[in-house]
This record gives sequence, C-alpha cells and structure tokens, in this order.
Amino acid sequence: MQYSPKIQRLVSLFSRLPGVGEKTAQRYLFYLLTSDPEIARDLGRELGTLHDELRPCDKCGNIAETTTEATSKSEPVICSICRDPRRDPHLLCVVGRVHDLLSIERAGAMRGRYFVLGRLLSPLEGIGPEDLPLERLAARIEQDGVREIIVATPPSVDGEATALLLKRELASMAVTMTRIASGVPHGGDLEYADPITMGRAIAGRRSL
Amino acid sequence: MQYSPKIQRLVSLFSRLPGVGEKTAQRYLFYLLTSDPEIARDLGRELGTLHDELRPCDKCGNIAETTTEATSKSEPVICSICRDPRRDPHLLCVVGRVHDLLSIERAGAMRGRYFVLGRLLSPLEGIGPEDLPLERLAARIEQDGVREIIVATPPSVDGEATALLLKRELASMAVTMTRIASGVPHGGDLEYADPITMGRAIAGRRSL
Repeated sequence: MQYSPKIQRLVSLFSRLPGVGEKTAQRYLFYLLTSDPEIARDLGRELGTLHDELRPCDKCGNIAETTTEATSKSEPVICSICRDPRRDPHLLCVVGRVHDLLSIERAGAMRGRYFVLGRLLSPLEGIGPEDLPLERLAARIEQDGVREIIVATPPSVDGEATALLLKRELASMAVTMTRIASGVPHGGDLEYADPITMGRAIAGRRSL
Repeated sequence: MQYSPKIQRLVSLFSRLPGVGEKTAQRYLFYLLTSDPEIARDLGRELGTLHDELRPCDKCGNIAETTTEATSKSEPVICSICRDPRRDPHLLCVVGRVHDLLSIERAGAMRGRYFVLGRLLSPLEGIGPEDLPLERLAARIEQDGVREIIVATPPSVDGEATALLLKRELASMAVTMTRIASGVPHGGDLEYADPITMGRAIAGRRSL
C-alpha cells in the first residue's frame, strides 16, 4: 500500500523540521490524525500566518510582532526591545542567533540593546566575512552612538573567530569591545570540565 | 522579555505532538521563522485540511482519503484496501492501531482485509472490554462472511490480553482464529533475546 499524496506531503513537510526524520514525521501525523481535529486546525492556522505576524526586527534582527499598520511591507518592523525607552541605546550586545538573544533576556542580565548577526563566521561551511552584516552593524553603532559592544557569540571555534573578526573590523570606531566570560558553568563539576573550559576558567580568573 | 502570544500559542501547540517538549517546540518554531516562509505556509495549509481530506475508514478504521462526494459528512468513507476487489474479504486481520496495519502492509504479507480496534485491552489504563468495538467487529465478520481472523495485536501484555478477549468473545462464531508468530526477530542475536521471546521461539518451533 502506498501512502496517500496528502500523507506523503505532510510527512515530507514535517521532515523539514530540525531533528525530525520520516519515522518521527509519521508519528506526528498519526497523532494529529487520531486526536481532536481542533489541534491540527489550530496548528495549521497559526503556521499559515506565522510570517505575517512575526518578522525580523529591521533594527536588530530580533523577532518582532508586526502591528496592523506594519503588515503593509513598506513600514519598518521594530521589536519590543528596540522600542523600549528604558533600554540603554549606548550598550549593544552582538549575538549570533535569536535563540542566544532570548537566552540572555531570560537571564535579565543585559540593560542595553541587541544586534543579531544571523550567522557566525565558519570557514568549514563557507561563511566568510562578506556574509556577515558588518556594514549594518557599523551603521547601527554610528546611528545610536554606541559606546560599548558586548560580543556574545558562543565560546566555540566559529564564535571566537567571529569575535576576532568584529574586533578587527570595528577597530577604527570609538567603541569599547568586551567579550562574555567563558569558564566552568554554575553548578558545573570541575572534575568533568573539559580542558579548554578549565583553561579559560583559570586564564579568566578574577581577584576575590 | 516575554514571548509574544503568537509564539506562546505555537510553542504550546507543537508541544502537543508526541515526544515534543517546550525546548523542541521552540526549536521547530525558530527554524520555521528563519526559513523560507513557504515551509510554514505549506505546513499550515496541509494541517488545516488534514481532517477534511483524511478520515478513518468507516469499514475498518484505516486512514481513508475522502473523495469530493464524501466530504459531506453523511457519505461513508471507505479506504483503498476495503475498496480493492483483489483483497480476500474472507480473511480479516485485526490490529490495534493504524500504524500496525501500515507495518503489515509494508511487509506485503497480508492478502486479506483489516479491522483496526483503535486501542488494546489495558486494565492499567482503565480500558476494559466495553471500550473495544467488539460488536462492530462481529457485524463485520457476519457481513463479509469472514472465515479466518488473524489477531495481529502486539506480543505485549495488553496485546495478548486483547487476543485472548477476542478468542473468548468470538468463540461462538464459525471463524478460525490465528495469532501472528512471536519469536526471535530476523537478524536478531540469540544471545540478546529476552527470556520471554526465547521461550516463545522454543514453544512456537516448527518442523524443518
């Protein structure tokens, strides 16, 4: 027996999601088929309007809700953080992905604003300096009169390379550049820390 | 920062899928947000019409595509297996779930038709004999003049209990009842077979 075209289409669409293979896609589909039809209908409706209601913020790249006026594509879409007057416009935190921004926000540790690069420098994946929005970042620094940039790319090979690139590219601008600390995480066991993390924890030590 | 209501709604809907928690739901959402908008839109459209285009077969419980005429809810929906005249109507395979039916179809090992119970007897989950469609099964046997029933519930506690229940309930009908074989699977290593499987493999031995 062949699956019906409808099933094949849905399985192939679910398989596009990260970490979802054909088996998992089928499992999702059969769950939805045997559950309350409202679940599939609601999910369908919300997904259908996803990109109309949420768009990258034109200023920082964070996810922004479109207002009714802004849904006409000409209006710029500005996220709630960029609109918040209590945020320090002179402090800019540069992150790789929106996920990282959300993680920093959850910690409530940043009182400035953000700039989402969208990707990291990655020679292995063929992503070079020309693929990063460096000009937009420089324009943002000028425009907002940014005084400090916190480079919050991950402490990985690509993240460190991106941080070094930013340091070099923005060297001519009158802006202080800092890097988030890397070391043994809170609650982490020294016994299980990898040598690189442990090396960073020692090198980045602070006076008590 | 709070997630927007749109994000919250989608995360909670994705979290309804089996094995999907909040983190995975967010991952799916951010993937869709940062990918080609067509993916979210296609998935949304297909899910929105899922239950209109696919419904349980009124005869066997398999997934059936609704024809244009049958979308008015009064028309019965009959699946491709029940409609196939080359299938032996006198041989009926009883399975627990549609997944099991599909697995048997993939093996191409059944030339008869199916009956999907939808659930198994499970005292632990409070599913008793009255929750199984035994009357509909008996009616189907009468109607199609079924001569053999292959009970293909899984070789688990619930599956075996269901098989025994079917044997008892259908004892008065003029129908042969068989049970799928249970033993060491193809390619399985005897060394790692659990004692129950090994016991079944020995008890179910056949002459060479």
